[in-house]
Amino acid sequence: MFITNSWYCVERASEMSTLPFERIVCNEPIVFFQTAKSGILVALENRCPHRQAPLSMGKVVGDEIMCIYHGWTMNSAGACTHVPHQVNVSSNAAVKSYPIIEKWGFVWVWIGEPVRADQALIPEMPWLVAEDRSAVLSRFYVKANYQLMADNLLDVSHSDFLHASSFGSQAGKKGETDKVRQTMEVTSDNSAVRCVRTLRDVELSPMAAAWGGFTKQVIRTHRQKWSPPNTVNIELIMENDENKITINHDHIMTPETETTCHYLFGFTRDYNLDKGYPNDADVRREQEGVIGSEDVPMVEAQQRNKLRFGDPVDIPGQADKFLIAVHKRIAEQAG
Amino acid sequence: MFITNSWYCVERASEMSTLPFERIVCNEPIVFFQTAKSGILVALENRCPHRQAPLSMGKVVGDEIMCIYHGWTMNSAGACTHVPHQVNVSSNAAVKSYPIIEKWGFVWVWIGEPVRADQALIPEMPWLVAEDRSAVLSRFYVKANYQLMADNLLDVSHSDFLHASSFGSQAGKKGETDKVRQTMEVTSDNSAVRCVRTLRDVELSPMAAAWGGFTKQVIRTHRQKWSPPNTVNIELIMENDENKITINHDHIMTPETETTCHYLFGFTRDYNLDKGYPNDADVRREQEGVIGSEDVPMVEAQQRNKLRFGDPVDIPGQADKFLIAVHKRIAEQAG
Amino acid sequence: MFITNSWYCVERASEMSTLPFERIVCNEPIVFFQTAKSGILVALENRCPHRQAPLSMGKVVGDEIMCIYHGWTMNSAGACTHVPHQVNVSSNAAVKSYPIIEKWGFVWVWIGEPVRADQALIPEMPWLVAEDRSAVLSRFYVKANYQLMADNLLDVSHSDFLHASSFGSQAGKKGETDKVRQTMEVTSDNSAVRCVRTLRDVELSPMAAAWGGFTKQVIRTHRQKWSPPNTVNIELIMENDENKITINHDHIMTPETETTCHYLFGFTRDYNLDKGYPNDADVRREQEGVIGSEDVPMVEAQQRNKLRFGDPVDIPGQADKFLIAVHKRIAEQAG
Repeated sequence: MFITNSWYCVERASEMSTLPFERIVCNEPIVFFQTAKSGILVALENRCPHRQAPLSMGKVVGDEIMCIYHGWTMNSAGACTHVPHQVNVSSNAAVKSYPIIEKWGFVWVWIGEPVRADQALIPEMPWLVAEDRSAVLSRFYVKANYQLMADNLLDVSHSDFLHASSFGSQAGKKGETDKVRQTMEVTSDNSAVRCVRTLRDVELSPMAAAWGGFTKQVIRTHRQKWSPPNTVNIELIMENDENKITINHDHIMTPETETTCHYLFGFTRDYNLDKGYPNDADVRREQEGVIGSEDVPMVEAQQRNKLRFGDPVDIPGQADKFLIAVHKRIAEQAG
Repeated sequence: MFITNSWYCVERASEMSTLPFERIVCNEPIVFFQTAKSGILVALENRCPHRQAPLSMGKVVGDEIMCIYHGWTMNSAGACTHVPHQVNVSSNAAVKSYPIIEKWGFVWVWIGEPVRADQALIPEMPWLVAEDRSAVLSRFYVKANYQLMADNLLDVSHSDFLHASSFGSQAGKKGETDKVRQTMEVTSDNSAVRCVRTLRDVELSPMAAAWGGFTKQVIRTHRQKWSPPNTVNIELIMENDENKITINHDHIMTPETETTCHYLFGFTRDYNLDKGYPNDADVRREQEGVIGSEDVPMVEAQQRNKLRFGDPVDIPGQADKFLIAVHKRIAEQAG
Repeated sequence: MFITNSWYCVERASEMSTLPFERIVCNEPIVFFQTAKSGILVALENRCPHRQAPLSMGKVVGDEIMCIYHGWTMNSAGACTHVPHQVNVSSNAAVKSYPIIEKWGFVWVWIGEPVRADQALIPEMPWLVAEDRSAVLSRFYVKANYQLMADNLLDVSHSDFLHASSFGSQAGKKGETDKVRQTMEVTSDNSAVRCVRTLRDVELSPMAAAWGGFTKQVIRTHRQKWSPPNTVNIELIMENDENKITINHDHIMTPETETTCHYLFGFTRDYNLDKGYPNDADVRREQEGVIGSEDVPMVEAQQRNKLRFGDPVDIPGQADKFLIAVHKRIAEQAG
């Protein structure tokens, strides 16, 4: 079961065009496209009412989409407006239309009752479009339940192990517990659950050190915010007497099925906007490389292992405080 | 459930040899081969009675097939005639044998009670072997229920959309309904359901125009005949004051499983038999290219979509008159 | 259901190192490694108790293994000894540890109650480590139930058909029954079932003839011994007045799932130890080539066919005497 009456992020706005494509959201196959005439975004049930051909194989014509099998044509509300060689069209010839909007550079579709689709329910992420920042947006397909991908971000202690050789650090290894000091505070309000985690005396990996030109240990602070249904905004600050840099990591998980999800990701930086390294291409290469080869395989392995072992009970550590608070909030909302 | 006591087409006669191969027909795995001594066609249950190894991995020896695992040998009736190092063979060592015949250049196997296997039940297709015609036979494997593939041929209105840029036309698009005039007549008798569909003022695609050397619009007539279990014979006539050409499209769908089928296809032409274009190689390239890249992917997508959406009710159009009549006949026969 | 309280062979000892790897044994995913400090072998449930990440993705550190996701560290008993940034570790943070030993060049894991893990239960195969022999060990992954792989070895009459052109002979073909004389004796005791099968006047394939430099027909004797749960030791003697050679074929089948297994194999020879052909590389190439391209595909095809045909009753031949005796013993032990 999935949370309904929610906005789900499916793509980056830059990817929308008159070439229709499919995303399955909460088990519902949906065709997405931008119309040729008005340029509006459309999301329809991905089937022709005639013979169930996928509309995503069709062609956008004007403000409509034509099924490529027998030429039936649907408008943006999902109603069939034309059957070849036929004057009248049955009013039963129609498919479901979904509310859809663009916000923060992403495309969001509403799963639930259309009348409740309130744009204000989308979390605020103004840095993604701010003048003094530079944002890079990515999409990943993950063969795991969306919550496992979210949990990855709710316990950022993983960055010093899974990412030890890429953008993590060497903190937290056995025998080094006392040297790197950790603090962690979790708070909740009606709309969100938040966490601030600080590590002192962190020796950065070469990649992370290069971003800020750090040559010495830093204080590293993660300010995290979870919003329903599945957005995790992380403000990551790395600082010492040499420099201070801020990164906004935005992670939005959209269920495809119970065991697969779409993972939309933004990396916004406030540093080196005019300088050589990193530029946006560097950021994309680094982030898509590391997430694609470290986080995604781990989360997919976790999903397979949970299924194989019959979903054993997790044993939490102190670093799971934030994750536990979010899971509790989700259970309250479901209940 | 599949219709039994029927002939099912599995291959072209030209493909039969002493190299055994398997086809699954109506969920039954069957090994096919031609014997080395008498040259007869044989169809047996594809398992050795000893240890269930597939006989299709075996070797044809004389008029028999030897299992490659332990050397047990079966005759064309499915009886084991030899067990190595053993004088007597149990009469239980036997597998099922199927009636099999060659007709119209195709190989047909009988699923049902062998005593009811009447060769006269195979639909007549004499043009496939006529002196003044040239026939090209093809086989496709389709990951869809055989009826979805048959439905493709029962509604030929798809040719102007799915095949718009290959062998269709530009008729029927929204806004053009009145310009291209369609008539359609459906009739039934005890053995078959028939349809005649005529479009006037048809502007052909370049490929179809080239077949008859047409430079102007044509009258295009499809004479269709459906015979049980799943044969659709289409006589396609394109004509104007420049030329008249006739094509026989023969489509025979054989269920493999509920969601896969074998699709045997014949294209017989009465034109350009001695001239350059199209020769048989052109026909094979064009037809296998278009069906393989346009019809088969569409029908497979339809199958997947029907499963994903829980098999929604189709909304018919006027062009579905023939398809509806055939479905009704099938339902009557199923009882 | 699998037989428990048994040793199962999972790998060759030569493959063990500090690089952890997974084998699924009797449906249980297990991580195997050799520790860096003491060099002992360890087998643990392949999951971290924290969040179920596979430990096989982790790193061996000293005598422990660290999960790569969040750095939790487990000792060889499966107890968590370290959680990053945390002083105390919950005693619930633990996974199952399996008894594991090395014997005869193979690694064995105990599935069942650890206190019953008696090393004496592993079948004796002293030739594998004898001074005057040379042994080559191989591993195959087979997509079939382990018993189907074992049955392959319990009916060696397959060697003259499946391996006719590799290391079999031309004996037993239809029409040749009387020329090659077979004898076969089956005996049982408490620990094992045994069979001696002798063929006289055997014309060897070129490969088998070359091993012993045979130019004439031989007497070929298979002395077979089956031990629970699934070891088949075969002593193969080929002899005539030119030469006599002895090969020990050891076959150990370990269930992965109901329809897949690990197949460990040893080929030990007493001939040509100092001469050119065959050397160990020849043996490996020949045996892995023939088993991988002849036995494994056949057994996998048999598995698929049994599933497709609903597991028909096998019809045994006289050569199945040993196989039937072993199946009877297995049924008695299960019952």
